[in-house]
Amino acid sequence: MKRFFEAKTVALIGASDRATRPGYHLFSNMNAGFGERLYPVNPKLVEIEGRRCYPTILDVPSEIDLAVVFIPARSVPEALEQCAKKGISRVIIESGGFAEAGPEGVALQQKCLQIARNAEMRLWGPNCMGLINVIQKKVLSFMRSHWRDSFIPGTVSLVVQSGMLSAGFLAYVLADSPFGLSKVASIGNKVDVDETELLEYLVDDPDTGVIALYLESLERGRRFFELCRSTDKPIIALKAGRTDLGAQAARSHTASLAQNDEILDAAFRHAGVVRVYDFRELFDVARAFGAWNAPATGRKRVAVLTFSGGAAVLAADSLSDYGMQIATLSESAVAELKKVFPEWMEPANPVDLYPAIERSGPAQALQQALEAVVQDPAVDAVYIHTISGIYTEGADFERIATIARRLEKPLVLWNMGDAAMVAEIRRKLEALGIPVLDEINRGVRALAALTRGR
Amino acid sequence: MKRFFEAKTVALIGASDRATRPGYHLFSNMNAGFGERLYPVNPKLVEIEGRRCYPTILDVPSEIDLAVVFIPARSVPEALEQCAKKGISRVIIESGGFAEAGPEGVALQQKCLQIARNAEMRLWGPNCMGLINVIQKKVLSFMRSHWRDSFIPGTVSLVVQSGMLSAGFLAYVLADSPFGLSKVASIGNKVDVDETELLEYLVDDPDTGVIALYLESLERGRRFFELCRSTDKPIIALKAGRTDLGAQAARSHTASLAQNDEILDAAFRHAGVVRVYDFRELFDVARAFGAWNAPATGRKRVAVLTFSGGAAVLAADSLSDYGMQIATLSESAVAELKKVFPEWMEPANPVDLYPAIERSGPAQALQQALEAVVQDPAVDAVYIHTISGIYTEGADFERIATIARRLEKPLVLWNMGDAAMVAEIRRKLEALGIPVLDEINRGVRALAALTRGR
Repeated sequence: MKRFFEAKTVALIGASDRATRPGYHLFSNMNAGFGERLYPVNPKLVEIEGRRCYPTILDVPSEIDLAVVFIPARSVPEALEQCAKKGISRVIIESGGFAEAGPEGVALQQKCLQIARNAEMRLWGPNCMGLINVIQKKVLSFMRSHWRDSFIPGTVSLVVQSGMLSAGFLAYVLADSPFGLSKVASIGNKVDVDETELLEYLVDDPDTGVIALYLESLERGRRFFELCRSTDKPIIALKAGRTDLGAQAARSHTASLAQNDEILDAAFRHAGVVRVYDFRELFDVARAFGAWNAPATGRKRVAVLTFSGGAAVLAADSLSDYGMQIATLSESAVAELKKVFPEWMEPANPVDLYPAIERSGPAQALQQALEAVVQDPAVDAVYIHTISGIYTEGADFERIATIARRLEKPLVLWNMGDAAMVAEIRRKLEALGIPVLDEINRGVRALAALTRGR
Repeated sequence: MKRFFEAKTVALIGASDRATRPGYHLFSNMNAGFGERLYPVNPKLVEIEGRRCYPTILDVPSEIDLAVVFIPARSVPEALEQCAKKGISRVIIESGGFAEAGPEGVALQQKCLQIARNAEMRLWGPNCMGLINVIQKKVLSFMRSHWRDSFIPGTVSLVVQSGMLSAGFLAYVLADSPFGLSKVASIGNKVDVDETELLEYLVDDPDTGVIALYLESLERGRRFFELCRSTDKPIIALKAGRTDLGAQAARSHTASLAQNDEILDAAFRHAGVVRVYDFRELFDVARAFGAWNAPATGRKRVAVLTFSGGAAVLAADSLSDYGMQIATLSESAVAELKKVFPEWMEPANPVDLYPAIERSGPAQALQQALEAVVQDPAVDAVYIHTISGIYTEGADFERIATIARRLEKPLVLWNMGDAAMVAEIRRKLEALGIPVLDEINRGVRALAALTRGR
């Protein structure tokens, strides 16, 4: 796997010079990452943007660590034969038209695998978007090149089976609310390289702290779950084809066979994998673990701080859905809270801070309440509801985050408000280890993941 | 109720001239809606922004249809006595500090109710944000006045029990993705006016096509469900305090008593109410019905059009979760689809349009596919996945919407992409009756609501 993610010299078979074509995006992305160490191949072109283009891979005057293939499916076997002759040991086939496209495609895919096996060549794909090494700024994918700017380095690595959806969706999610990524792997039909091999690599990868997977099928499940159990790194899985209807759709897409979902579900649970049900949830939980940057704590007594009784009720319902508890605050914490509340009010968890704000102002109310609950030995985690610019000004989140980190108590903030302010607060707080979500249930879901443990 | 929503001459007891105070927002909002027919009352002020301010309601030299009260709780009974003396028959108490604030508040609330009963005065609140008549541009609420611009007239009426959360959240939801509203009612502790009375009014209100409710408790349930069954207008309900933890939190918030959620759930189902589980879902389903502008159809065979096999699988899983079906396309529809697909591919539902785009271009592929499936007698509804600006250009949605409307087949679009383009497409398509959602499961949820029927 390392040779895929850290290849030094690469070729692109199927480079295009037409800016609207995926083959051009691939060229542009790989050119940005490898420069002179990228060798474009296309028999119809002499050069692309001043870079010499080679008729075949055999004409390339350098050893190649990794070739990316993006040509029509029927031409791929010949290109692979040439890669084998050239002694290339790693190939990513990003073209579609294989097992997902009927019996002819299945045969073509088998033929590719045979060529690779005979040459001791490892194959990635086909029908995928390749890989991105965010830390090293290498994009071996035909995603639109302007999306490169969306990626910021971090600790979350993603493995996705479906190409189109994941890359496009990822780009828009990142544009909306960026979080730090390490490696992104789109593995498509996974004729050779599969999620279990990737998991093996990522579990040991020092640049990866959190692993998030989108899968339509699971290969070598036994080894997969062994790996999950072997690591402290949080693993989050979105498995499509859960239902009969979904499994039918998956069969025609990446030719995946259905698996018994109940058995799979039990296995996920037993292995401590956080199971999620859509892409948004996958990214939410991944970003939360990325910010928290530590394993799940396994302790479930939550203090809820809101500025609205209604939010408190809905948060309590949602916490209950995830098997969490509402902490009974200890006397010392209640005494601390009372200092900012009106005399007539006995504060209790969930804490509605509105009366405290009326009496003591938002900054003091929030700061005092946060310090009281985060230090309360009867509290394991804190859920905070705020409105940007109205109720977030003035509180010393750096101090709170330091205490929370020391006591291993995750904090999650559900923040509403003006989009620009929400983005600014998210950036600031997530750098401190406090995930920021923008819907009540999404915030609770993230907190549940951070506290549930195994 | 009509006298609340269509009051001509109003008073504000507790008007403030300080721009940061809720009492000022109330003044500003009511002033914008009523102008000279608003009479501000505050014994400490002579005028507010050039408008004369009266020491008490008894000094106001006009008959008053409706008084809004926003003064400290302990002073409210005296103000009510004066309203009674003045012959005012409708009063909204927006102040907090009543039943939600302990035994003293409970007593105060009872006292207010007694005064009102003796005077045959109807009370709205306390502990609420009042009402908004979007069609007539009347805002009788202390929400920040710049939020007034977020409201656009439409057919959805909202009833919310919790003030703070709903108004703030509503404003941000509307800023993010506006949809048309008719009336908004925040009823708080509902000492007199309750959701059932409001429902009675809204069911007959010609300006209301869709009714969405956020409730922490349900008063007069029998009559409530009778009304739900009596109308074709879609009714959507978010009930907080579903779980034991939530019910506990609700008790301390609006002093609501817990209700058996299983019984409630069966009643919702029996009465054809769409039950939802958070605010985002409440607004999603409401906006979908607002756009569709017709009752749920009750037919569940869905055609799915995507540009990504992965999206198809996840959509199928989600449709299955909501009890929907994947339509088996009829031969004539398949023949129509084939015209845009490559020869090697037999199109089937869910339809992955990517090969058709490769062959025929996005506009023709989408147009042909949409026409084929929407006219297929084996299809009851259509779920479309698009990416703004890439896969939405060129298709004649107006034509498709007309056919869909005639055949009573709801279409929902799950659209990803650049935020500004997403907003533009949403505006355009929702005006045509096609709801646009921006997450796969949120789109499926909306479509399920439109098709499930009773």
